[in-house]
Amino acid sequence: MIHTRIERVRQRLAAEGVDALLVTQPSNVRYMSGFTAGADASLLISATQTLLATDFRYYEQVARQAPEYRLFQVPKGLAAAFGDLAREAGARRIAFESTHVTYALHQDLAKVEGVELVPEKGWVEELRAIKSAEELSLIRQAVAISDAVIAALPEMLRPGMTEKELAWEVEAFMHAQGADDVAFPIIAAGGPNAAMPHAVPSERRIVPGEPLTLDLGARVHGYCSDLTRTVCIGQPDARFREVYEIVLRAQQAAEAGMKAGMLGKDADALARQVIADAGYGEAFGHGMGHGVGLDVHERPSAGARSEDRLEPGMVVTVEPGIYLPGWGGVRIEDLVVVTESGVEILSRATKDPVVVL
Amino acid sequence: MIHTRIERVRQRLAAEGVDALLVTQPSNVRYMSGFTAGADASLLISATQTLLATDFRYYEQVARQAPEYRLFQVPKGLAAAFGDLAREAGARRIAFESTHVTYALHQDLAKVEGVELVPEKGWVEELRAIKSAEELSLIRQAVAISDAVIAALPEMLRPGMTEKELAWEVEAFMHAQGADDVAFPIIAAGGPNAAMPHAVPSERRIVPGEPLTLDLGARVHGYCSDLTRTVCIGQPDARFREVYEIVLRAQQAAEAGMKAGMLGKDADALARQVIADAGYGEAFGHGMGHGVGLDVHERPSAGARSEDRLEPGMVVTVEPGIYLPGWGGVRIEDLVVVTESGVEILSRATKDPVVVL
Repeated sequence: MIHTRIERVRQRLAAEGVDALLVTQPSNVRYMSGFTAGADASLLISATQTLLATDFRYYEQVARQAPEYRLFQVPKGLAAAFGDLAREAGARRIAFESTHVTYALHQDLAKVEGVELVPEKGWVEELRAIKSAEELSLIRQAVAISDAVIAALPEMLRPGMTEKELAWEVEAFMHAQGADDVAFPIIAAGGPNAAMPHAVPSERRIVPGEPLTLDLGARVHGYCSDLTRTVCIGQPDARFREVYEIVLRAQQAAEAGMKAGMLGKDADALARQVIADAGYGEAFGHGMGHGVGLDVHERPSAGARSEDRLEPGMVVTVEPGIYLPGWGGVRIEDLVVVTESGVEILSRATKDPVVVL
Repeated sequence: MIHTRIERVRQRLAAEGVDALLVTQPSNVRYMSGFTAGADASLLISATQTLLATDFRYYEQVARQAPEYRLFQVPKGLAAAFGDLAREAGARRIAFESTHVTYALHQDLAKVEGVELVPEKGWVEELRAIKSAEELSLIRQAVAISDAVIAALPEMLRPGMTEKELAWEVEAFMHAQGADDVAFPIIAAGGPNAAMPHAVPSERRIVPGEPLTLDLGARVHGYCSDLTRTVCIGQPDARFREVYEIVLRAQQAAEAGMKAGMLGKDADALARQVIADAGYGEAFGHGMGHGVGLDVHERPSAGARSEDRLEPGMVVTVEPGIYLPGWGGVRIEDLVVVTESGVEILSRATKDPVVVL
């Protein structure tokens, strides 16, 4: 698996006319090597060499997790050892991840004699965007755990509990279901707080009749799920029902119309058009979707300006929303995998928003 | 509080001869503005203006959390709006955080006409390194929570439980004690796994008589604690007792000798010398300590090559260790605050390594 990925990078090196790729983005390091502590390591991949540079804290872990790589000990950091690494890899023209390497690190790397640095964008991210069967299996496990949260909501929700209390119960529940971790900090936002797409759980109490948005994901062996449901304890009012129905229609339109070959912005437009036609265009201010994998936000983008092309095997969120300051908001989010003819919807959590306690 | 920090930055702008500072590092954004979702926002601070640029998802949160800033909506990202932001701030020469801004972002920002970009390193980080009374109070709360974990270990530890199970019990316990979150993924490493300074909790079972390293921290209103204890269920063998005694002496030497005015590398040497004299110099491969605050690793460094100068009000870890592949390791870590004459040790967890169940 790692071997195939390395071969793909080597094909890219040849096609681009560079000798090696320096990988520093943590999830890219993990994807290309199997070394889970991606944040504290760098890879140098050339036509013949695979080197992993890290410090003392990880020597043993590298030996266990990344057998396809030769360990290079860099106690003084990457820049100090970069000349040696380049020589070891037999590389002169070296591509680097320009959306991850900082200005200061680039300045330091550029001082190394005999090396020419070539900025690249997204070489490994493009590979990561299309999931293998093994990766899809882990994502399905993570999706099943987040779906189970929604199924358990009637037991979990107690009127008067705070958003923070609910968020913790959700986290503990996902752990009990086998999640290694949360994929991102859980959002539990009730009433007016639901008008903030990225609200942080607060001490506000959850009240029957108000919109309550839950956005949550599990992580299983590194792979994320991402699920949002907006619910209402007891009977929702007319406004909730109106807004909810529009968002649901927007999501269904996107899920029915998305397929391989489409641009991200065209997928976005499928949902956005429904919301705009209903008169709420200004209230849907974020992108319709994004890729999910080792990172909870990764390629492709399915936002309003995205030129990314959907391809079979990509895993993408479909998450339109309407946010009305002072009142609240509704967002409904599924995770789907793109196929030749459409999408397979991975999320199975109910979309009936009424929770009866 | 935020106001004072902005004044400090403005003094720096005047001293350095630049018109404004662009702040993008998430904890720096939070420190300078109060906006907790630091990762998705940028600040532009000039002599007269304070602008916060973010997208739709955070408009309401900015208004609540960062009243000293004027919200600037950047739906197409920072680079697309940078010219307008610079004009609004009346700034031509603009400093940027060169250890955070990526090569690609710098390229995009540099295309904006009429702006001159000036790389800086650590301006806000230097302010953050010295804690206010309010910050120290939050850190003390976080320290008390991690200390409580060690006090509860005899109730929490069960022979035969896995490292993963223990790590989760520690996390749930800290939550129950009022932590908003863990400061970093908990390390629970038994036997040979304790030889990896940054081990990830595994399915390995915890066995009496073996070294067990626990490295954990709580987060309270953004501020972290960081604590390590190495323990042994039941009676440790002679090797454990020998190694433990050396590491403890090394830590005590550092805590007794550290004080304001000292360089980070000299603080490191206080502990390193004890371990080297005992013949284990090669087995202590990481730095002796690091600053802790909004980030669990921040300024100053107290590693073997650090030229950072310790100053009163800095909060630093003191964490020597000895790691022996195949056997295990011992690390003992306290959090201390630097004073004029020495350090105040914040951590109060017992250093008696024997856990009787």
